[in-house]
Amino acid sequence: MIHSKRVGRSPSHDYVAGNGLINRRALLGQGIAIAGAVGAAGSINGAAADPLVDEPWSLEFGSVIPPVQTPSPFEKNVVRSLSNPNGEFRNSHARTPHQLLGGTVTPNGLHFTICHCGVPNIDPAKHKLVIHGMVRQPLEFTLETLSRYPLVTRTAFVECAGNSAPMFSKVPLQTTAGMLHGLVSNSEWTGVPLSTLLDEAGIDPNAKWLIAEGADAQQLDRSVPVKKAYDDALIAIYQNGEHLMPGNGYPMRLLLPGYQGNMNVKYVHRIKAVDQPAYSYFETKNYSQILPGGKTWRFHFVMEVKSFITHPSFGLNLGEPGVYSISGVAYSGTGRISKVMVSADGGKSWGEAALQGPIHEKAFTRFVMPWRWDGQPAVLLSRAYDDGGNVQPLRAEFVAKRGEAVNPVTTPLAFPNQHYNSTTSWAVDSKGEITHVYA
Amino acid sequence: MIHSKRVGRSPSHDYVAGNGLINRRALLGQGIAIAGAVGAAGSINGAAADPLVDEPWSLEFGSVIPPVQTPSPFEKNVVRSLSNPNGEFRNSHARTPHQLLGGTVTPNGLHFTICHCGVPNIDPAKHKLVIHGMVRQPLEFTLETLSRYPLVTRTAFVECAGNSAPMFSKVPLQTTAGMLHGLVSNSEWTGVPLSTLLDEAGIDPNAKWLIAEGADAQQLDRSVPVKKAYDDALIAIYQNGEHLMPGNGYPMRLLLPGYQGNMNVKYVHRIKAVDQPAYSYFETKNYSQILPGGKTWRFHFVMEVKSFITHPSFGLNLGEPGVYSISGVAYSGTGRISKVMVSADGGKSWGEAALQGPIHEKAFTRFVMPWRWDGQPAVLLSRAYDDGGNVQPLRAEFVAKRGEAVNPVTTPLAFPNQHYNSTTSWAVDSKGEITHVYA
Repeated sequence: MIHSKRVGRSPSHDYVAGNGLINRRALLGQGIAIAGAVGAAGSINGAAADPLVDEPWSLEFGSVIPPVQTPSPFEKNVVRSLSNPNGEFRNSHARTPHQLLGGTVTPNGLHFTICHCGVPNIDPAKHKLVIHGMVRQPLEFTLETLSRYPLVTRTAFVECAGNSAPMFSKVPLQTTAGMLHGLVSNSEWTGVPLSTLLDEAGIDPNAKWLIAEGADAQQLDRSVPVKKAYDDALIAIYQNGEHLMPGNGYPMRLLLPGYQGNMNVKYVHRIKAVDQPAYSYFETKNYSQILPGGKTWRFHFVMEVKSFITHPSFGLNLGEPGVYSISGVAYSGTGRISKVMVSADGGKSWGEAALQGPIHEKAFTRFVMPWRWDGQPAVLLSRAYDDGGNVQPLRAEFVAKRGEAVNPVTTPLAFPNQHYNSTTSWAVDSKGEITHVYA
Repeated sequence: MIHSKRVGRSPSHDYVAGNGLINRRALLGQGIAIAGAVGAAGSINGAAADPLVDEPWSLEFGSVIPPVQTPSPFEKNVVRSLSNPNGEFRNSHARTPHQLLGGTVTPNGLHFTICHCGVPNIDPAKHKLVIHGMVRQPLEFTLETLSRYPLVTRTAFVECAGNSAPMFSKVPLQTTAGMLHGLVSNSEWTGVPLSTLLDEAGIDPNAKWLIAEGADAQQLDRSVPVKKAYDDALIAIYQNGEHLMPGNGYPMRLLLPGYQGNMNVKYVHRIKAVDQPAYSYFETKNYSQILPGGKTWRFHFVMEVKSFITHPSFGLNLGEPGVYSISGVAYSGTGRISKVMVSADGGKSWGEAALQGPIHEKAFTRFVMPWRWDGQPAVLLSRAYDDGGNVQPLRAEFVAKRGEAVNPVTTPLAFPNQHYNSTTSWAVDSKGEITHVYA
């Protein structure tokens, strides 16, 4: 961290909420006073450095351009967190490290993955999607035949129903945004509208459900309302410009924008049109949320409006007092994000963050709020609103309705553990150290 | 390719232009007749296959989820084409394989790269950006201090001025869309508005130009109008969600949306505010286009409106006659794409393609047009229009103005070789084989 010499001399800002939240328009042209003055008594990692003396990489021929480039060696810690790194015969999770990313796209290599039976290696020349059941003519599709359809491109998040399960813990767990919320990611998807394929097969008007099944050893099957297929479902064959990666459904997956992740069946192999749902294991047991009164949410599809701050957050401690930027992601399975409010005083006062447009439906929206940290303790949190009138619940309100659990990390099958969409709060102490708190 | 049994029985379509271009709305609900009927005498790669018999990957536990996932082994041919794979001491190019991609995002690993002195391995803790010259107070910025500013996220293409140079050849070269047009790619970029940094340094109102210089051994320097900095220039630190890759400017680059690629200085190290341009080698020699009359385009910044078809294209031969989708990318350095027209008869008649929204300014827009190939010869081409009233020129018109060259691949310094933005035509013969032609 460069020691700014100008913090004390910076202009007074136009504050929009307590504890240093700044009107971003007031910042423009005033000098933010983050940068170091050239020649100031700054140091980088303890070593004095003259910025106008050339470094070694300015003086030597670099390396050969590879056919597929990879991140810098200095970015080697930007990886997913694995729940089952040795491949034991159980489910495994790879979580997106949100605290190390910016913007809205999740690179494919870092998109979250959950597999219940490992990652299959599927030959796309042999894989088929069959649409059958209550249809006039069962049809089969390969990656190649799907590529011939007029493809649709859209951005969408995919979120596991169990994302943020650690937030149900009675005590706030001290870990990163990625460990807490890394089972959601955001991509540009390209594929064939499922409605086009159902039309071609001639679906019976009495068919109300589709049973979608994957080709991996798990053969996860989920019941999907036919109505959703005609709303915005795709059979996705490209993700962020390239074919899907193996952990995300290569060569094809069902994409149900806004619906809980496991319904977006990967390696989709069969879609059967039927008149009632399957009541499969993965919808009646594993993904039916038990509520405090003992009832369960069955066929509870939509992932609720939500946001969390990625910068600053646990693991990204602050240096000197001064101007920082509070930034994070917001999304809603219902529609578009309409507003994100940010607080630096634990929810006593709120300022409206800037949203990075264009704002896509059922997709990440990046929010940004400038903040002057005065070196005193602060508690940062965000709260999202969507264009359907839904509001991210505050924690007290959420816990009253949904309950808490014993530590869901040490007791992974503790309930409740799904559809957490309340706030996440980061406490900054006077040394700039960040902890996870419940505000 | 599945042999469709239903091609002959498909409904008559609503054609919008000659040689089989279809109104996409007319497709809906009519049956496209691409898919194979289950149980039909189909074969996949010559092997009869029952789609309801499980394949090996449905019967065994898959592999361990890795920290960073990579594409399927079946996608090993999806790589950039290298002009200097052995790292000889000269410039080197890696071209994006557009014919193998879909949607609009170029994955970072496949974004085009040009380096004149190899790829530098820069330590982000030591790299600084210095803003100096005609400013009140010279300032220095690191990746860490830039991360503290309110960051802006936007989508933009970057295109080398010499992209599509092979299109100046007097004879059409028989190669892929990626080999012809692979020096343009499209990303979501996140960074600090350059105007914010110039304001903080207190730029002198008499400064009209910025000289931007990179930190690699090439130390490429280019003169940029101050006006562009206040329009939409960024110091980009994230690309598609993660920090830039080494071939694209890690840890920071200048992003000048719509301006020729080399001005988007990678590894940007110094920006000097001055009152006149530098007339550097890379702006007066290497990137000043010589025109047929002997004059040159100097300080010719904006990449013109352009499009090309990626599917079908050279290397992606068609199988049986039937419905296909004609798809490609369109973009303009001036603004938004407003329309893309497609022809299947070499430009005699045109139909308007569907555009995949939202349509970003100075970014790729994917266009799609359904097409019934009747098995007869066809010539496919696309023509883009932007919201500034600019139209992609037809080839005869373009060549009359800009000239042609001897084969620019065998004679790489042949002129003209820059700012090609005319059409690209793919001829389909009666066997479905595709060649590059000038229509």
